[in-house]
Amino acid sequence: MTSGSVELPAEVSVVNLGLPLFADAIRDQGRPVTHVDWRIPAGGDLDLVAALTRLYGRHGAAIDAANAEVVRRLDTGVPMLVGLARAGDVVPGMGERTILHCGPAIAWHDMGEPLRNSVRAAVVAEGWDVEAGDDEVDLAPANLHSTVVPMATAMGPSAPVFVVEMEAGGTRSFSPINQGPGEVAWFGRDTPAAVDRLVFLRDVAGPLLADCLRAHGPIDLFSVAAQGLQMGDDLHMRTQAATNLFLRTLLPSLMGLESAARVELGRFLAGNHLFFLNLAMAGAKSLTLWAEQVTGSSVVTTMARNGTTYGVRLPGSDEWFLTESPPVGDALFHPGRGPDDAAPDIGDSAVLELVGLGGCAAAGSPAVAAFVGGTMADAVATTEDMDRVCVGRSSRFKLPILDFRGTPVGVDVRRVVELGITPKVTTGILDAREGGQIGAGVAHAPLACFRDALLDLDRRLG
Amino acid sequence: MTSGSVELPAEVSVVNLGLPLFADAIRDQGRPVTHVDWRIPAGGDLDLVAALTRLYGRHGAAIDAANAEVVRRLDTGVPMLVGLARAGDVVPGMGERTILHCGPAIAWHDMGEPLRNSVRAAVVAEGWDVEAGDDEVDLAPANLHSTVVPMATAMGPSAPVFVVEMEAGGTRSFSPINQGPGEVAWFGRDTPAAVDRLVFLRDVAGPLLADCLRAHGPIDLFSVAAQGLQMGDDLHMRTQAATNLFLRTLLPSLMGLESAARVELGRFLAGNHLFFLNLAMAGAKSLTLWAEQVTGSSVVTTMARNGTTYGVRLPGSDEWFLTESPPVGDALFHPGRGPDDAAPDIGDSAVLELVGLGGCAAAGSPAVAAFVGGTMADAVATTEDMDRVCVGRSSRFKLPILDFRGTPVGVDVRRVVELGITPKVTTGILDAREGGQIGAGVAHAPLACFRDALLDLDRRLG
Repeated sequence: MTSGSVELPAEVSVVNLGLPLFADAIRDQGRPVTHVDWRIPAGGDLDLVAALTRLYGRHGAAIDAANAEVVRRLDTGVPMLVGLARAGDVVPGMGERTILHCGPAIAWHDMGEPLRNSVRAAVVAEGWDVEAGDDEVDLAPANLHSTVVPMATAMGPSAPVFVVEMEAGGTRSFSPINQGPGEVAWFGRDTPAAVDRLVFLRDVAGPLLADCLRAHGPIDLFSVAAQGLQMGDDLHMRTQAATNLFLRTLLPSLMGLESAARVELGRFLAGNHLFFLNLAMAGAKSLTLWAEQVTGSSVVTTMARNGTTYGVRLPGSDEWFLTESPPVGDALFHPGRGPDDAAPDIGDSAVLELVGLGGCAAAGSPAVAAFVGGTMADAVATTEDMDRVCVGRSSRFKLPILDFRGTPVGVDVRRVVELGITPKVTTGILDAREGGQIGAGVAHAPLACFRDALLDLDRRLG
Repeated sequence: MTSGSVELPAEVSVVNLGLPLFADAIRDQGRPVTHVDWRIPAGGDLDLVAALTRLYGRHGAAIDAANAEVVRRLDTGVPMLVGLARAGDVVPGMGERTILHCGPAIAWHDMGEPLRNSVRAAVVAEGWDVEAGDDEVDLAPANLHSTVVPMATAMGPSAPVFVVEMEAGGTRSFSPINQGPGEVAWFGRDTPAAVDRLVFLRDVAGPLLADCLRAHGPIDLFSVAAQGLQMGDDLHMRTQAATNLFLRTLLPSLMGLESAARVELGRFLAGNHLFFLNLAMAGAKSLTLWAEQVTGSSVVTTMARNGTTYGVRLPGSDEWFLTESPPVGDALFHPGRGPDDAAPDIGDSAVLELVGLGGCAAAGSPAVAAFVGGTMADAVATTEDMDRVCVGRSSRFKLPILDFRGTPVGVDVRRVVELGITPKVTTGILDAREGGQIGAGVAHAPLACFRDALLDLDRRLG
């Protein structure tokens, strides 16, 4: 099959770097071509390229070592759910006039309407004789109090919180009970029904679930999450399987409750497939609290949004790097609703993408596939994007469709800035004006805050 | 890139039929080859080839039409769980001295030890003053009484059974409550603990679950199964997700039970991830009862084993075609146990493979993958084998890994005999001498009973 008369090779292979035009032209002629999606690092920004040169070069070995330790902590810590208590009694530094909210610190007048509504609902549920925006109300980011809250959640000291302990790191983290679907404050509503749900959680669900957890004993949350991931959960947008596994584990305790109010709790649990979301988040937070004690790492250990700003932090530094919170990228909306109605990305739940869940686990979730193109190949592509910006792979969260490869763990700001690929976060979407869920999707984190974090790391390392 | 001096084409492609040796030789030389796994139809048996010629030829159009109707019934019927009742009160033709057992009809002296043990346990639980093998005990196949029972189950008239109604076909089917893991009669044990479990199911679980189902109202079983399949269940070997979905649906009713015995029920349910198996089987039986009323079809509507014989039936005929029940093919055993300990394949649960579940759904189940090679590609190959012998695809059971393609439905004896590929059935494995589960695997149905069914269909059609 070789050519007899001329010196041309019988077969040529083409590798194309960068712009895909050349590869497309060769493919159109029916010849094989390998296309490498190479881009100019950091979009060619000279300051960023100089910083990357130092952070991969001179500081590279030290950063890699720190990152390995951060990933070890994120990957091996075992978050145990040990109970449920009144937030004001257990959350460190939470005063009796504190409302904890999602995302970075924010003043009342900068909040979007969903978060304001949620703060209003929390203040009414607390029974305080003040307005939500008054100076008497101390607004504080949950993240700075070892707590994580999903979507537009705001919570006062009387809210019940799950208590999660992680022995290896000596950390303790907290998250409220998920409020469920419908007319609810965590979706940015402040109607009587939304307040009633908060009161129900405080007065009925909280005490009963606390009894159940006492009767059952500690529960390994990420063992439940790992099983849920094998069952189609990404553990962020979808927690159906993990919720059900968790509830069957608790079934004897739930059925053992004496109070007649247990039936109301049963109805609430039967109707809330996101019940495990807050538990997964609390588990993830217990790991990031441990990981953030490492110094000199380029792996993100805080990523949160308040509906106005989007913030990230790196280990060994208290500084937040902020930028405007963008709309959710790949989105599907309820009938009659669309991007014009949508509030910007919101909530602390992006902590899940830092430990190998959510967007990292998209390849395991047919439910996520619907939001990124419809096929499992699209869901796999989302996981592969996360893999390109992460430095490790989970030893506990395994993807059947990728032959049980671990999910990506440890978002490296160097890779994010170099490649211009930001974390993909599976999430819900709220109505910007009135609150209420109007859709869901996969949000692309904004690049600016990662750039600033990278430059700060470069400055700190000198 | 074409050759200049000789007339040989620059590229050749090879298609190889039959023996793979030639394809391997070309592949070894680094050239592309497409291998077609063609075999001599029906192994070259002249009688079978003659029958196939008629059944595909002269009778082909009529059979195809009948098969389409059978598949329509298997695919579109909606089995509803409507309640739970005492078997003797609802199962048609079940006398007060009847023990229903798995598989085709069998005399006491022909039973293997696991099934004998199970009959013994049932007789003791009934409180009858006779021995299990006495003439006073009427042994009857559950399948002939609109009932299906998994593994070595035997049940008397006092056993509680789920009642499933399927409106389109006007059919009604039954299955007992799954007995759970451990020392249990359905695994072929007759110890006091095994009898106690039967008594618990009759006296405690049965009445309480009946109350729950009354309080809840009818449940669409295959809607639960379809969701479970998206969550890693094959709905035969693994029903974890469907069990959990079902229990969360019932949670308000379960938690609403007044009796203090509800806690014992809670413990039983929390420890039994195969609880949904019997419900899926009852649902499948309600469909085959409708489908078997079609005449002139080559699609199997009964497939069951009693641990000694393996039997299949075709629509429009009461005749069973029997052969010896083989050991389970692709098997994994508990530590220290192996093929020498294993009882032959047993139970009515193969009804699931007739409606698109079990082996048909292997591609959706990481748990099944472990038994057929370890990777999801191996699990997909099991589904593809079923696809080659089935005439339709499910419109409700979708496989994410195959881009939401429907599972194969409708096992055609013509294809089975022509290709020599028999149904793959995911199942448990019992100890041949003492009972008790010692492993699990994927059983290959024996070819002989399909051959006989084919020849009989050919005779009937003339």
